[in-house]
Amino acid sequence: MTQNPPAAGAVELVEVSPRDGLQNERRPLDTPDKLELIRRVIARGATRVEVTGFARPDVVPALADADEVAAAVAGTPGVECSALVLNVKGYQRARAAGITAVNMVVLATESFSARNQRMTVAEALAAATAIRRLAAADGVRFTLTVGASFGCPFEGEVPPAALDALLHRVAALAPDEIALADTIGVAVPSDVTERFGRLERAAPGVPLRAHFHNTRNTAVANAVAAVQAGVSALDASLAGIGGCPFAPNATGNVATEDLVYCFGRMGVPTGFDLSGLIDDGRWLTDRLGVPAQSAVGRAGGFPQRR
Amino acid sequence: MTQNPPAAGAVELVEVSPRDGLQNERRPLDTPDKLELIRRVIARGATRVEVTGFARPDVVPALADADEVAAAVAGTPGVECSALVLNVKGYQRARAAGITAVNMVVLATESFSARNQRMTVAEALAAATAIRRLAAADGVRFTLTVGASFGCPFEGEVPPAALDALLHRVAALAPDEIALADTIGVAVPSDVTERFGRLERAAPGVPLRAHFHNTRNTAVANAVAAVQAGVSALDASLAGIGGCPFAPNATGNVATEDLVYCFGRMGVPTGFDLSGLIDDGRWLTDRLGVPAQSAVGRAGGFPQRR
Repeated sequence: MTQNPPAAGAVELVEVSPRDGLQNERRPLDTPDKLELIRRVIARGATRVEVTGFARPDVVPALADADEVAAAVAGTPGVECSALVLNVKGYQRARAAGITAVNMVVLATESFSARNQRMTVAEALAAATAIRRLAAADGVRFTLTVGASFGCPFEGEVPPAALDALLHRVAALAPDEIALADTIGVAVPSDVTERFGRLERAAPGVPLRAHFHNTRNTAVANAVAAVQAGVSALDASLAGIGGCPFAPNATGNVATEDLVYCFGRMGVPTGFDLSGLIDDGRWLTDRLGVPAQSAVGRAGGFPQRR
Repeated sequence: MTQNPPAAGAVELVEVSPRDGLQNERRPLDTPDKLELIRRVIARGATRVEVTGFARPDVVPALADADEVAAAVAGTPGVECSALVLNVKGYQRARAAGITAVNMVVLATESFSARNQRMTVAEALAAATAIRRLAAADGVRFTLTVGASFGCPFEGEVPPAALDALLHRVAALAPDEIALADTIGVAVPSDVTERFGRLERAAPGVPLRAHFHNTRNTAVANAVAAVQAGVSALDASLAGIGGCPFAPNATGNVATEDLVYCFGRMGVPTGFDLSGLIDDGRWLTDRLGVPAQSAVGRAGGFPQRR
């Protein structure tokens, strides 16, 4: 039971609502509304936005307009507009649309990899290697997310030793940033400290990012633990939209509003305008016809004007 | 950005659903259901339950049966059945019902004290002094909660220096335990570390308790920070029921299920049966006709059997 110093410095939020947030929503957002969403979050302070993902339209119909969305926003000055790519074909589509930062996902377990990406983990690593080589030649930023790092919906516990082996293989790709993702929202702060410690040892000096879902109300606690463990960037989704199709009853990604509130009150700047974000979160959930998952979006900031 | 060791030891949860949870619900629970609730949480592992509060029935009608509830459960072996008391009359009613542990609340700001307790802070401290004297003579355990320690719905920020002065006056009463309450759910972990540090300096050696609401999704993070700062007990409410009438749109107390999950996965035992608690949380919200505020109650624990 040691006393923690408050976290210092700043934390960078990566707005993932246009990709992870929207990919499983029942009522799809049309392309102009996606562009409006991206425009709004940038206006509120986002400097990094995962704007879409390049997948097969028959598999992820909500992202069928990836080429159009990416082309419309790639090159926005002062903002990193990144895209999810899972194979070389997706990388080539992203490049054709003008994208200069790509994120690849490798899952920590075979069962989840087979269901989510229709690949073995070895195949996903091979795809990552090919994309990494192209990105290096093209001068494209290449980041990698290790999904289900804290638990798997099919296999349950992800043993630290098994994760360790994968982290060393991922580190060998020399990504520009590595993220650990709690895809199904089971992590607790001690896991975060422990597993980011392993990642730091596997990939010393590589910038770290974390991706949390608030499925079991631990996401904000995990985000605080991640920043205290040296993580410099956190994925977040406006209004907390976005669940995982393999995590039934799951609430969504950790809400951007909730992280902006918490870190702002902790004196760790995120650079976002909270009250504007709350307005935009309401706009988004109105458009989608879903309830807001952001507690700050419902309750407002503090102190409030009366 | 220092790395935290995981919290060690154990944490004691105080189940407050029968009092803080129920006092503002629109559909009141009848007395047999309240007794059933208390019986259930004890069967799941609760060793401390705030079973009711002694207030004027015209002011808090949901607790009008305080005498009957208290008399039915006081003296349950192995469990501390405590009651909220706000004045000597309440204390005497609690004693007549056989209660042997009382909790008094003093609010950190004058505006909130006037609206919530119809007293000045000095009057509340005088009442606490009188109750403390009676409790010492009667061999009754006397604990005290400082409400709105992290922010006030009327005055906004609660300056640390103002809180400090109150904490020293509270410490002079020599309570058996002192709690800081985030009554309106605005605290963040750095506040928790800082203000419990102040409390520990004001009342060295006195056991500490924390009371959090999840209004802005920070309650679990705050609970972790509290335990790391040396707090030994946390208030929690089954299914997260219980809002504050002065905190509009507020979600409730931090859910017992969520704390049991988080601390359990962190290796900090709480002594509760999580899957049983989840069942009981559903029973309670069904009875009340309200949605569950516990994310773990909705999503379940982890790993789950399939």
